[in-house]
Amino acid sequence: MLRQHEFQIRVRYEDADPMGLLHHSTYFVYFEIGRTELLRASGGNYRLMEEEGLFVVVAKSECIYHKPARYDDLLTIRTTVKRITPAKIEHEYFALRDGERLATGRVTLAMVDRNGEVQRIPDWLQEAEIGEH
Amino acid sequence: MLRQHEFQIRVRYEDADPMGLLHHSTYFVYFEIGRTELLRASGGNYRLMEEEGLFVVVAKSECIYHKPARYDDLLTIRTTVKRITPAKIEHEYFALRDGERLATGRVTLAMVDRNGEVQRIPDWLQEAEIGEH
Amino acid sequence: MLRQHEFQIRVRYEDADPMGLLHHSTYFVYFEIGRTELLRASGGNYRLMEEEGLFVVVAKSECIYHKPARYDDLLTIRTTVKRITPAKIEHEYFALRDGERLATGRVTLAMVDRNGEVQRIPDWLQEAEIGEH
Amino acid sequence: MLRQHEFQIRVRYEDADPMGLLHHSTYFVYFEIGRTELLRASGGNYRLMEEEGLFVVVAKSECIYHKPARYDDLLTIRTTVKRITPAKIEHEYFALRDGERLATGRVTLAMVDRNGEVQRIPDWLQEAEIGEH
Repeated sequence: MLRQHEFQIRVRYEDADPMGLLHHSTYFVYFEIGRTELLRASGGNYRLMEEEGLFVVVAKSECIYHKPARYDDLLTIRTTVKRITPAKIEHEYFALRDGERLATGRVTLAMVDRNGEVQRIPDWLQEAEIGEH
Repeated sequence: MLRQHEFQIRVRYEDADPMGLLHHSTYFVYFEIGRTELLRASGGNYRLMEEEGLFVVVAKSECIYHKPARYDDLLTIRTTVKRITPAKIEHEYFALRDGERLATGRVTLAMVDRNGEVQRIPDWLQEAEIGEH
Repeated sequence: MLRQHEFQIRVRYEDADPMGLLHHSTYFVYFEIGRTELLRASGGNYRLMEEEGLFVVVAKSECIYHKPARYDDLLTIRTTVKRITPAKIEHEYFALRDGERLATGRVTLAMVDRNGEVQRIPDWLQEAEIGEH
Repeated sequence: MLRQHEFQIRVRYEDADPMGLLHHSTYFVYFEIGRTELLRASGGNYRLMEEEGLFVVVAKSECIYHKPARYDDLLTIRTTVKRITPAKIEHEYFALRDGERLATGRVTLAMVDRNGEVQRIPDWLQEAEIGEH
């Protein structure tokens, strides 16, 4: 599995607030797209995982905002796998505009089944880091 | 079942756009709260309906915007049942500020089961109109 | 100016509801991206228009939902200019998945200045239709 | 100014994700309502502050998710002022359901003027802590 992935996203009018800036909560939506696309680029598919009964839940999220992103800005979201254990996955995210970092995020994920019972992270996901480091 | 219901909602910062105005798509979110609360006030519960396998889907939505609502405005959403047949439910919605109408919506609903198959509207919902007209 | 434009968008996890379906209000967000990108592909820029004091407001919106879109579906949004007068612009929108139409929207826009006063649609926007029909 | 404030909010259908759970990014929207209502309950008004040229920007946000909130749950958001200096304001947030804590958030705010220049936190806001501790 890949260790890093980038995609571009343009700030929607609806995602900007009365200051004309990307709302601080929406970065977490962009980060979620980042890890979904990292998985897809690695040959996985989150929708299929859910259909097979394995669900990702967020245990912790944080973001530091260095500079604001504005409506219509074209951002690059760079997602990096930082740590995978049998219990959790940690990604780091950079939101970049023209190479300048606007925000730094970190989100910790766990996995549960349909009943919300915590599950072991599958080996094929854990191997991500082993293969790439 | 009740034929009309009102509730108040304050425009969230996140729901306002760079003009400082409530985004036009968000009225439909407010209208959805309106019909959910109309059902609750009538003794029903949409979450329970879903747990029992009956799902509401939107067949058609429309809204006319008379005047803009701004961030932090306190709005009244008035939901009125306009028509219920075995196949569909139609509600009309007014978004009001200090008694002045800002928007008029109309949404047509149908019901499906877990597989997306169209279902007959339950009698207890149809009786809404019979009892109130 | 172009008369028609298409772009692709993948349904975000956050934009899907508890049924796993794209929320009906979010189509209007996709349609807004559609007209913004149509303008950009024609050499215009909505952010610049706002900076110059010309704002688009939505006068009327409607959508008919034929079939549901699901989380992670890759949709094509096709935006078509239907009518431009000095007072308003009407676009039609198709949401397509693998060529199948899932939803049909129609949104009417007007233009205002910073004080909310209605403005005449600029000639260069009106010429869109003349040049393309 | 008050040091703590609580309000209740029901999880909207649109704010729940395909798991039927409140999306992790939306807690930050609820927290923002919390600090806005704390200010209002203290006699302030954020919209007026913006009209007078003082804007709040988020410098850092974080949230730990203990248990999921579901669609239609009635949550209590408890906002507490943790620290106010001339440079920043820190609030802590609890999301509670029937007295049980589902999430713990912490958000650091700074203030800027219309040009994005950092501003000193006004004395009347700083006095919040002095008066209440």
